Amino acid sequence: MKYGIIGTGAIGGYYGARLAHAGHEVHFLLHSDYDYVCQHGLRVHSWMGDFHLSHPHVYKDTHEMPQCDVVLVCLKTNNNSLLTDLLPPLLHSNTLVVLIQNGIGVEADVQQMFPSVSLVAGLAFICSSKTEPGVVNHQHYGSINLGNYSCSDAKLVEQLLAELRGANVEANLVDYETARWRKAVWNMPFNGMTVALQCQTKDLMEQPDSRRLIYEQMLEACRASQALGVKGVDEAFAQKMMKMTDEMVPYSPSMRLDWDYHRPMEIHYLYTRPLQLAREAGCPMPRLEMLEATLRFMEGRYIEH
Amino acid sequence: MKYGIIGTGAIGGYYGARLAHAGHEVHFLLHSDYDYVCQHGLRVHSWMGDFHLSHPHVYKDTHEMPQCDVVLVCLKTNNNSLLTDLLPPLLHSNTLVVLIQNGIGVEADVQQMFPSVSLVAGLAFICSSKTEPGVVNHQHYGSINLGNYSCSDAKLVEQLLAELRGANVEANLVDYETARWRKAVWNMPFNGMTVALQCQTKDLMEQPDSRRLIYEQMLEACRASQALGVKGVDEAFAQKMMKMTDEMVPYSPSMRLDWDYHRPMEIHYLYTRPLQLAREAGCPMPRLEMLEATLRFMEGRYIEH
Repeated sequence: MKYGIIGTGAIGGYYGARLAHAGHEVHFLLHSDYDYVCQHGLRVHSWMGDFHLSHPHVYKDTHEMPQCDVVLVCLKTNNNSLLTDLLPPLLHSNTLVVLIQNGIGVEADVQQMFPSVSLVAGLAFICSSKTEPGVVNHQHYGSINLGNYSCSDAKLVEQLLAELRGANVEANLVDYETARWRKAVWNMPFNGMTVALQCQTKDLMEQPDSRRLIYEQMLEACRASQALGVKGVDEAFAQKMMKMTDEMVPYSPSMRLDWDYHRPMEIHYLYTRPLQLAREAGCPMPRLEMLEATLRFMEGRYIEH
Repeated sequence: MKYGIIGTGAIGGYYGARLAHAGHEVHFLLHSDYDYVCQHGLRVHSWMGDFHLSHPHVYKDTHEMPQCDVVLVCLKTNNNSLLTDLLPPLLHSNTLVVLIQNGIGVEADVQQMFPSVSLVAGLAFICSSKTEPGVVNHQHYGSINLGNYSCSDAKLVEQLLAELRGANVEANLVDYETARWRKAVWNMPFNGMTVALQCQTKDLMEQPDSRRLIYEQMLEACRASQALGVKGVDEAFAQKMMKMTDEMVPYSPSMRLDWDYHRPMEIHYLYTRPLQLAREAGCPMPRLEMLEATLRFMEGRYIEH
């Protein structure tokens, strides 16, 4: 299949480069790195082995890109309003759009923008970062879970899974709602708390009060998902996430990096939307609401100063 | 009556100086300011008018102080274990001990140390600070509410009220439990939040998310007090506190000053004790629990670094 990558950063750059490295035709949309990548190509430093694409297909404008069979949307969700302009040139009647983005409610909003497009959620389990132009640092993990949101062609999703696996990416099909909420169970506590307390995951796990708080926040997300009728997000899963985080290297989640690099934080889809759904389901998440308020306050101060 | 002041800071220095200025015999325990005050006296810069005590009775050691009829304890609660040594020399059989201290549970613990002593809670509504040796800056308000905890001699409390009023201090008798919890309704949100978000009261009131959060935290304290059977701490009172804070100058509560000056914060009596009582009464305060965890985490980092 022919691939389009909207947002060639730590995530889009990684998965796109894997697919290209495996021989697929991949078209990358770049922004600030465009000139550098034209000249030097795209490099991946990975714990699974480094590789380099010397002449990737790169673009500054999606109107110059071809129609693709699969588009990976790897923008920060704060920029999703741009999709009304960015996406149409890449779509044919059967294009599969994979939103590899953070949070809850992203698919619902993109579907409203493009009512007939086939959407799949992509949940990346990866520690990667882009610290210099044209270079992706892939530090840990790397798998991706796909949750079918609105694609009626199951074979198309199966083919994507197969091509990802063939490109050395562990890929699995999962239940959409379960997958989004499972990810939220980890994302909601750690993204915000590492910003609020200016620390990394390991610091929060080691101090007993913050450790208890993180676990209580996980349970809030579990209970909310249950109230929303989502299956498979229970206390046992929260315990598994605690154990996994204990075993992780000290880590700065994406929101902490956004804060550090003075980029807007993804508060809307990581907090506002799931908090609203939880309230509507009669199961508010008070600690995570407090975290949202804290982040909004910090964001306001940062923008003012 | 003869007065003893344990802790001659922004609070003890202020009320003690008022009483001495009105002609009462007042004995001050000092620590770091002792030499300065011996030489230069004690100065009060007050919005109600400045005054100066040229030769106050000052001490470095309570064993050199006389027995007193009233002792105002104005230590930080973190130092209350020192009272087992500090207090006995000042006590006669009928001494009234007034704890002008922050938080919930202070009287219960001091009563355990001194089972037969008469205790009164002193709730100071005052903006004052001690920014240089021997000088109290009294910026705003100045009243004190007394709540009788264990004094069987009501006349003694009345006499104290009268002498305070005669010394230009607005003083009222209030219900002990109501007064402590009413104070907590303001103290619990603002002390911790100004530390957690490194801001002043006005910043929290102006930003809509933090404003809502502060109010929700106030309501948590109201509901907990009701579950504990305390009267007069309801939503109307929380609204009154919001209005009062709107009308206040931008203010740094005592915990924020403690943080800024690298002094230990009064987390135990301001958070841990009331949170525990609320949990025991089946009415936990999740946002304030999260705030406690945040402060414990910050305290730990500060001490480590």
